[in-house]
Amino acid sequence: MSSFRVGSHTLASRLIVGTGKYATYAQMAESLDRSGCDCITVAVRRERLIDAEGNNLLDFVDTSRYTILPNTAGCFNAEDAVRVARLGREILSDLENPGADWVKLECLADKRTLLPDPVETIKATEQLVADGFDVLVYTSDDPVMAKRLKNAGAVSVMPAGSPIGSGQGVLNTNSIKICLEYLKEDDPTYPVIIDAGVGSASDVAAAMELGVDGVLLNTAIAHAKDPVRMAGAMKAACEAGRDSYLAGRIPKRLYATASSPDEGVITWQPES
Amino acid sequence: MSSFRVGSHTLASRLIVGTGKYATYAQMAESLDRSGCDCITVAVRRERLIDAEGNNLLDFVDTSRYTILPNTAGCFNAEDAVRVARLGREILSDLENPGADWVKLECLADKRTLLPDPVETIKATEQLVADGFDVLVYTSDDPVMAKRLKNAGAVSVMPAGSPIGSGQGVLNTNSIKICLEYLKEDDPTYPVIIDAGVGSASDVAAAMELGVDGVLLNTAIAHAKDPVRMAGAMKAACEAGRDSYLAGRIPKRLYATASSPDEGVITWQPES
Amino acid sequence: MSSFRVGSHTLASRLIVGTGKYATYAQMAESLDRSGCDCITVAVRRERLIDAEGNNLLDFVDTSRYTILPNTAGCFNAEDAVRVARLGREILSDLENPGADWVKLECLADKRTLLPDPVETIKATEQLVADGFDVLVYTSDDPVMAKRLKNAGAVSVMPAGSPIGSGQGVLNTNSIKICLEYLKEDDPTYPVIIDAGVGSASDVAAAMELGVDGVLLNTAIAHAKDPVRMAGAMKAACEAGRDSYLAGRIPKRLYATASSPDEGVITWQPES
Amino acid sequence: MSSFRVGSHTLASRLIVGTGKYATYAQMAESLDRSGCDCITVAVRRERLIDAEGNNLLDFVDTSRYTILPNTAGCFNAEDAVRVARLGREILSDLENPGADWVKLECLADKRTLLPDPVETIKATEQLVADGFDVLVYTSDDPVMAKRLKNAGAVSVMPAGSPIGSGQGVLNTNSIKICLEYLKEDDPTYPVIIDAGVGSASDVAAAMELGVDGVLLNTAIAHAKDPVRMAGAMKAACEAGRDSYLAGRIPKRLYATASSPDEGVITWQPES
Repeated sequence: MSSFRVGSHTLASRLIVGTGKYATYAQMAESLDRSGCDCITVAVRRERLIDAEGNNLLDFVDTSRYTILPNTAGCFNAEDAVRVARLGREILSDLENPGADWVKLECLADKRTLLPDPVETIKATEQLVADGFDVLVYTSDDPVMAKRLKNAGAVSVMPAGSPIGSGQGVLNTNSIKICLEYLKEDDPTYPVIIDAGVGSASDVAAAMELGVDGVLLNTAIAHAKDPVRMAGAMKAACEAGRDSYLAGRIPKRLYATASSPDEGVITWQPES
Repeated sequence: MSSFRVGSHTLASRLIVGTGKYATYAQMAESLDRSGCDCITVAVRRERLIDAEGNNLLDFVDTSRYTILPNTAGCFNAEDAVRVARLGREILSDLENPGADWVKLECLADKRTLLPDPVETIKATEQLVADGFDVLVYTSDDPVMAKRLKNAGAVSVMPAGSPIGSGQGVLNTNSIKICLEYLKEDDPTYPVIIDAGVGSASDVAAAMELGVDGVLLNTAIAHAKDPVRMAGAMKAACEAGRDSYLAGRIPKRLYATASSPDEGVITWQPES
Repeated sequence: MSSFRVGSHTLASRLIVGTGKYATYAQMAESLDRSGCDCITVAVRRERLIDAEGNNLLDFVDTSRYTILPNTAGCFNAEDAVRVARLGREILSDLENPGADWVKLECLADKRTLLPDPVETIKATEQLVADGFDVLVYTSDDPVMAKRLKNAGAVSVMPAGSPIGSGQGVLNTNSIKICLEYLKEDDPTYPVIIDAGVGSASDVAAAMELGVDGVLLNTAIAHAKDPVRMAGAMKAACEAGRDSYLAGRIPKRLYATASSPDEGVITWQPES
Repeated sequence: MSSFRVGSHTLASRLIVGTGKYATYAQMAESLDRSGCDCITVAVRRERLIDAEGNNLLDFVDTSRYTILPNTAGCFNAEDAVRVARLGREILSDLENPGADWVKLECLADKRTLLPDPVETIKATEQLVADGFDVLVYTSDDPVMAKRLKNAGAVSVMPAGSPIGSGQGVLNTNSIKICLEYLKEDDPTYPVIIDAGVGSASDVAAAMELGVDGVLLNTAIAHAKDPVRMAGAMKAACEAGRDSYLAGRIPKRLYATASSPDEGVITWQPES
């Protein structure tokens, strides 16, 4: 699978995996390994980075193997998100980690739905871009907001397939198609990443078949009954979906000798 | 990925691939190689086996590598199908190919839709079972017919996800779930294979996530823009879907903190 | 809404309603009234027709208003179904009810799923047609079986949208489209009725928009929280769906100025 | 069907119909009549209100029968939308029409998709509310933006089911459910109206079954093959969907005796 660029980074894998919600650090490490990813995202708010026993999550990650993408999970306004993004930069700079120059921006509306807040998100994007960050921004699947975030300088727009942790996959493929049209016309290599909502391997493959550049996920692996096995499934599904997209699928038909899925339907007939 | 048994055969790959509709024999051979399959299905009617130049398809297949599953494509009644099945047995016996003892039974209703004919299918199944064949039977997704075919002695029931060559994937997951319930209760290793209709890698992964044992396909690879690449995608998707099924996916929710996808819907309220 | 013919009967309403599962006879009567139907179906097995108190359901139905369509619910093989159909004919003949000449045939596979058994169904259809019945036959959505039942002499084929009482609506519109193609080509007025599975008003409207001639339902009204109100909803939905079908809907597009729902999707691109 | 309130207006019909795109004024008038609506929306930009022959659309509408809801269609930023809203108020005040006090706000991103622009929409909402308008605001299905628009003072939030004129119905029922949760918790009578995207009667019924208060549409009637008939279908579908919602539908099950649509699916099993 060919690599792709996001900002100043080149990623070999199109799957980006989160580091939260695992039962143990060992399970996390093995899942990351099996996922085949080379970029992982880490929440940098103190209460997320340091666990109850005082362990720093970064101590359990092979930072020579994975590029760290710091994220602002747990932030509910632009001010907070900007502050946390800067904290992430500091932490990674101290570690001389190449992830210091970028951030996955999450500005959430509330703890119940974890949906992104569009107003605070755009404000934070502008500030972080001004600050010199490569901003990868989590947003809804609204294509107009996606375009505005690109215009604000985000290096990648990451629309949700469905709410974080909901496991529903890409609920509105129509919206993602328009996002792709808006974001990639005249700029085909601009990276669009589905962030949030996938629940199974087929969700990942279906997302990739829409023509997005990558998928970011966490709960679908971490909360599967067998996270390590699911990590392997997601790796294979991401590659399968990308290749399926590039290979050019057969058209959908009512049956093989019909011309479309609608053949056989009389959509109008004179009043009888 | 663990192997599975169908009749007297043990298959390492859960993907079974057809050999029709390729532009060239070389493209077919490369696609089969990339699909990772160890079982391929071959139509044994003379007009399908021998091309216009007099070439026999079997001469272009590495029969030491692939188990041949002869099929009765192009047969429209039981009599014809039984005759063709016997012809297949003869051809493969002459080649000392282990595929001589089984057959993929297709008894089709007409050339337009290529849908299976339930009445002729059950009749042919009974005759072929009596003849000593291991019968893998192509059928609709009707669970009652599926059960009847198992009861008639078929070693595998292979419901269509959607019509042959339609590329619509599994259109009725409800029916496939009931097929699985009927066919696997008290007999969990009975092999159920989705035969026909898949169009893309995500279709294959989604089918496997239902808990079926394998997927059989042809057009989705042979008529893709790039068959060889699509073959690789299907291999990865089949493995991804199987692992995703075994790994135990997260439940679907309206959002992560909700209890179901229906939360938030008031399904009844008193008249106002 | 224009009337339609089924066998020797002309129905003013395209909604046919069952009479089982109501909390009280009064609720049943009011629901039937509000549904606007002029044909109701009644199970004629003794244990269904006569309740624990010895009341005969037919005594609670205005037989001068509704045409009775006797049905063979509760029969699990052809012999039983034929016997019950003849019983229904006797009962309705004694009442001088015009419903004596037709029957809704149900030959079920088991009590768990209430799915139709194709083998017994076709056998019973042949016998009842030979007996002079107008047979309306409940079947799966398998188009080939539908065509065989028409060929066996059924005056109406009634494919299930989904299992009886499941409330899932028409799960496989593709199959229903092919049923319509098979049953109506060269015979456009042949009546096709969706029998079973609808759960809500939109399910009924969507079924009618496929071009079927009518919908038969029972549980969706009888087990709604407010059956009488739901009966009114179903009446309106059936009319809405029929008119929506006849009025000729707008095509689906990605957005208004696009040419199809797939615009914006690059389905193939050269390897990069 | 019970009436509902939007701002200072009480509407008897839950269907609000647009006045654009009809072939003739006579067809428009007859369609509006058959739709049963008592509120119609009219674009007040001069080029939309006055046709090529100098006819004013309002001269062809019975303003004593219909409440006029002026809209800002054709506006692509807040400034323009506010100006056009004020123009609408003037026109309707001159006619002593009660519609002078409210406005349907559309602030669109571009002419290609006609998707709403969230940033300009919220700005215009704030200005129009400050100006004393009752603002009914067209927006995406993003629940967070919906809540922000309510908080900005909109008397009704009107999420799109899908893009204007696309005929795809409600593509993301999950988002609409969360919109309803956000907008109606602690305020159950707050009116939520699906604006845009419906294509057929079943789309309208399905939207109403989600629990929204009304549906606003235009193209689905005006561009149907037979607009007048479609208008009647939409009236019936809106009533059907409302009653179906209030009547409390049966739950969805795999089959009647199963407990859920997922029964029969083994979602996890130990490695074999």
